[in-house]
Amino acid sequence: MNFSPQDIAQFEQRYRTAFINSLTGFKSVNLVGTVNSNGEENLAIFSQVFHLGAHPPLIGMIVRPHTTTRHTLENILEQKHFTLNHINPDIFHQAHQTSARYPREVSEFTETGLTPLYDGNFPAPYVQESKLRIGLQLEETQTLAINQTVLVIGSIQRVVVDEHAIQADGFIDLEVLGSITSSGLDSYHTTHRLARLPYAKLNTTSTTTN
Amino acid sequence: MNFSPQDIAQFEQRYRTAFINSLTGFKSVNLVGTVNSNGEENLAIFSQVFHLGAHPPLIGMIVRPHTTTRHTLENILEQKHFTLNHINPDIFHQAHQTSARYPREVSEFTETGLTPLYDGNFPAPYVQESKLRIGLQLEETQTLAINQTVLVIGSIQRVVVDEHAIQADGFIDLEVLGSITSSGLDSYHTTHRLARLPYAKLNTTSTTTN
Repeated sequence: MNFSPQDIAQFEQRYRTAFINSLTGFKSVNLVGTVNSNGEENLAIFSQVFHLGAHPPLIGMIVRPHTTTRHTLENILEQKHFTLNHINPDIFHQAHQTSARYPREVSEFTETGLTPLYDGNFPAPYVQESKLRIGLQLEETQTLAINQTVLVIGSIQRVVVDEHAIQADGFIDLEVLGSITSSGLDSYHTTHRLARLPYAKLNTTSTTTN
Repeated sequence: MNFSPQDIAQFEQRYRTAFINSLTGFKSVNLVGTVNSNGEENLAIFSQVFHLGAHPPLIGMIVRPHTTTRHTLENILEQKHFTLNHINPDIFHQAHQTSARYPREVSEFTETGLTPLYDGNFPAPYVQESKLRIGLQLEETQTLAINQTVLVIGSIQRVVVDEHAIQADGFIDLEVLGSITSSGLDSYHTTHRLARLPYAKLNTTSTTTN
């Protein structure tokens, strides 16, 4: 099937949302933990998280301000800190449930039975049940003019991960941790490694690089 | 293990790169096809691609201009069009090989044995071996001040996908297509669905939404 912009524009709205959300492929999926100055915690599932750089260590995230993620954004702007927590098969139902439209004063931790974990004075809660947890400091936010989504950039302040998942070269074996991936709006998947491939080199020494 | 920014800064550079690239979880992984005005094609593997919006249908991508992806960016800026092509187990070795530092005049299609496919007068090549192909028009690029990476935003102009992978509600079953995911810099994975979960609702009718 070959779909044009006109075809897509004529899709029923929820159909289009499900279709377009499937297109980028399997996604990073994380729980974002935040708290506001009243101590009201928020936990929200995000699939628009991406690596932005290793040196300095930066992660980017897209927030849609008119959805249930609004509380997350407000808390990040207020407290300047947030956490990312990988999801595993034991908690994916609870992780998905955080996308319900809870009012601000209700903690998704309490509602879903996930456990907030505080590390020293870091001003955002981690998810205790997560096997890879990242603490981030807000560096920059920017509203994208094209559709009013918000790009949030955080710098990595803390990484908590089981040592046995870290390989000799620094690669973290996410399958050891049970981290899952998502697709579309509501599909969750475990993974099975095909291979780690060696650094790609040119096939011939006569080829020059530039 | 609990890693601080000081710990991470002291990692050997390649170790740090592998470690930080693992943190966001499993990633969307796509081949980006472009061509310049001389007809020189480029094909590059990208794992920093994300859903940006369904209406209008937009996809975001992070490009690191000082790497092998530079030719991709130059071609996108010149031709204003590019393609995204899902990767499946039959082509993941070839897809990975596109990350070698080929000079501009060398086509990664030719070098890896993947087949460029042109659709009408769309000014970028698709990958024939891919089971989900997206044609995009450049809408915006922006250099992020924080680390000089470039945010590229494209609008979806064409989607080619087998009809039997599209479910009744618009969700595309990527496992039917064999689309894979990646982690770190060099690890590739097939997936196995845990479940599609229903739209999350509040647990109690007495709770109000806002």
